[in-house]
Amino acid sequence: MSDTKAMVQRVLKHNGGKIDSIYFTACGGSLVDMYVSYYFLQAESKKITTGWYTANEFVHVTPKKMGKNSIVFVVSHSGNTPESVEAARVAQERGALTIGLTFNDKADLLKYSDEKIVYEWGNEKEVVHNPMAIMLDMTTQLMAGIEGYDKLPAFKDGFDKIDTIVDNAIEQVQPRTKAFADKYASEKMFYVLGSGPSFGHAYGFAICSLMEMQWLDAAPIHSGEYFHGPFEVTDKNRPYIVIESVGRTRALDGRALKFLHKYAAKVEVVDAKELGLDMIDSDVAEYFSPILFYTILSEYRAKLADKRDHSLDVRRYMGKVPY
Amino acid sequence: MSDTKAMVQRVLKHNGGKIDSIYFTACGGSLVDMYVSYYFLQAESKKITTGWYTANEFVHVTPKKMGKNSIVFVVSHSGNTPESVEAARVAQERGALTIGLTFNDKADLLKYSDEKIVYEWGNEKEVVHNPMAIMLDMTTQLMAGIEGYDKLPAFKDGFDKIDTIVDNAIEQVQPRTKAFADKYASEKMFYVLGSGPSFGHAYGFAICSLMEMQWLDAAPIHSGEYFHGPFEVTDKNRPYIVIESVGRTRALDGRALKFLHKYAAKVEVVDAKELGLDMIDSDVAEYFSPILFYTILSEYRAKLADKRDHSLDVRRYMGKVPY
Repeated sequence: MSDTKAMVQRVLKHNGGKIDSIYFTACGGSLVDMYVSYYFLQAESKKITTGWYTANEFVHVTPKKMGKNSIVFVVSHSGNTPESVEAARVAQERGALTIGLTFNDKADLLKYSDEKIVYEWGNEKEVVHNPMAIMLDMTTQLMAGIEGYDKLPAFKDGFDKIDTIVDNAIEQVQPRTKAFADKYASEKMFYVLGSGPSFGHAYGFAICSLMEMQWLDAAPIHSGEYFHGPFEVTDKNRPYIVIESVGRTRALDGRALKFLHKYAAKVEVVDAKELGLDMIDSDVAEYFSPILFYTILSEYRAKLADKRDHSLDVRRYMGKVPY
Repeated sequence: MSDTKAMVQRVLKHNGGKIDSIYFTACGGSLVDMYVSYYFLQAESKKITTGWYTANEFVHVTPKKMGKNSIVFVVSHSGNTPESVEAARVAQERGALTIGLTFNDKADLLKYSDEKIVYEWGNEKEVVHNPMAIMLDMTTQLMAGIEGYDKLPAFKDGFDKIDTIVDNAIEQVQPRTKAFADKYASEKMFYVLGSGPSFGHAYGFAICSLMEMQWLDAAPIHSGEYFHGPFEVTDKNRPYIVIESVGRTRALDGRALKFLHKYAAKVEVVDAKELGLDMIDSDVAEYFSPILFYTILSEYRAKLADKRDHSLDVRRYMGKVPY
């Protein structure tokens, strides 16, 4: 685990220790990586206001509360996403403490980051170095420092175990990801269902993996919303990918799955429990679901890309035309 | 306008006036109607914590902060949506003051509602009686009571004008909604783009109007996120509906539109400014965008349903099979 303890201690001293809000802002896949930390604060904090914003909305409609009492996380993998750099600049100008995370040590983002994290990337088996894990770890520590939180030891234990769990799960899903690619290679549209801390990755798999990297149509659906509109399109032809979390919202995913197993025929389940996430303390395991899902879904998309002969790296607009 | 002033004054006395949070929870279309009020508080409040939850997630992962210092809005059109009724019960049990909104004066929801609003429905030209407008009006008043807010007169003026604006806009869009239905009747999948306070209705049009009522595939995309993944599917064949707000996020919608006009061929624009919303004070007009969009998008879906000969009222699962 990247050791962020000293950084967290510095951050907690911002504005004489008077911190009442922690915001998360980025674009696309980086925004997805922030969802679990935002969700954690929404669920667990008794004092901290939080928000999760696509960077350009944060820039144009900056929350009135955001200011000297605020911490603002900003992530940009390339480090130069203009909206994200501008979000960090605006946050700093208002007196917030900014924490910038990027893969690029020459990033423009770092000019407006009071605290700087240049993360590692590319080793799917060491997820604790990913920005998602780093931010979740820091957020739990920050909340503990601001208002107290008695589950930090359970989180530490989870971070100690997560790399092994993910490593085993990658092995475990090899046959099924190949079978998935064989079965679904000619599909044009996917629904992706998830809930709780993992809803961000239902969204992320739809917009980044399927739309951006495979030029496939996709829609994310919250498992709890499925029965309030979206389920009416369900039939034997439409493919569904359900990421089944552990923890408190597992019941929501399970309810959707029960319905899908009856009325749909193309249902792929990615079950965090079956993939070993219940090795983590059940008090906090749900917050590790998205960390597991990210890597496992990356296996799914890699096999799909191979089978479809559509490289994950090919783009027609991003970085190629003006926008 | 439903006169909610006396109710707001009672609500402000809850817990001796110590209110630090306002939550919104419901399912599907009712959840959509809450988005603008939630968004307003996220943007404008300096003190109030807020949250917007599909009801079953609120029930299973009730925010720790939600309790006696909280106001919780719950909406269920039928009044008996089990998850929403349970959400109101949980909120009340924790000591929150609950405000229940429903069309059904015998609703189970009302059993767990400290304040009860049985709204009118069906008159598309008197939108001020819709739950969306009622909640927005109450939320602005509540914020004014809790921390002060100097734009209430502008809001009042907006509510005075909105019915006329919507009425005129309905007339104005008759030819174009018919042309839309003619052009798009055989499409199978739509993308719906929006931003700011109107993003809720991009989501709502996708899940309620297209998926639930027309059994068509659909995906909502935030205009600000479009360039960070979703735009890679854009081509001359995929249809896009863009709801272009007035106000601070109009720039985000406009940027997406500029790109779409270049790389897509099937683009329908619903422009709040062209439809008269700039008659409202520019300080608050953006918050009226979703009220206008709801009614205008209802015209679009009605024409599409006619042309496709698929009644808006037909369901295959909802209320017909167990789930």
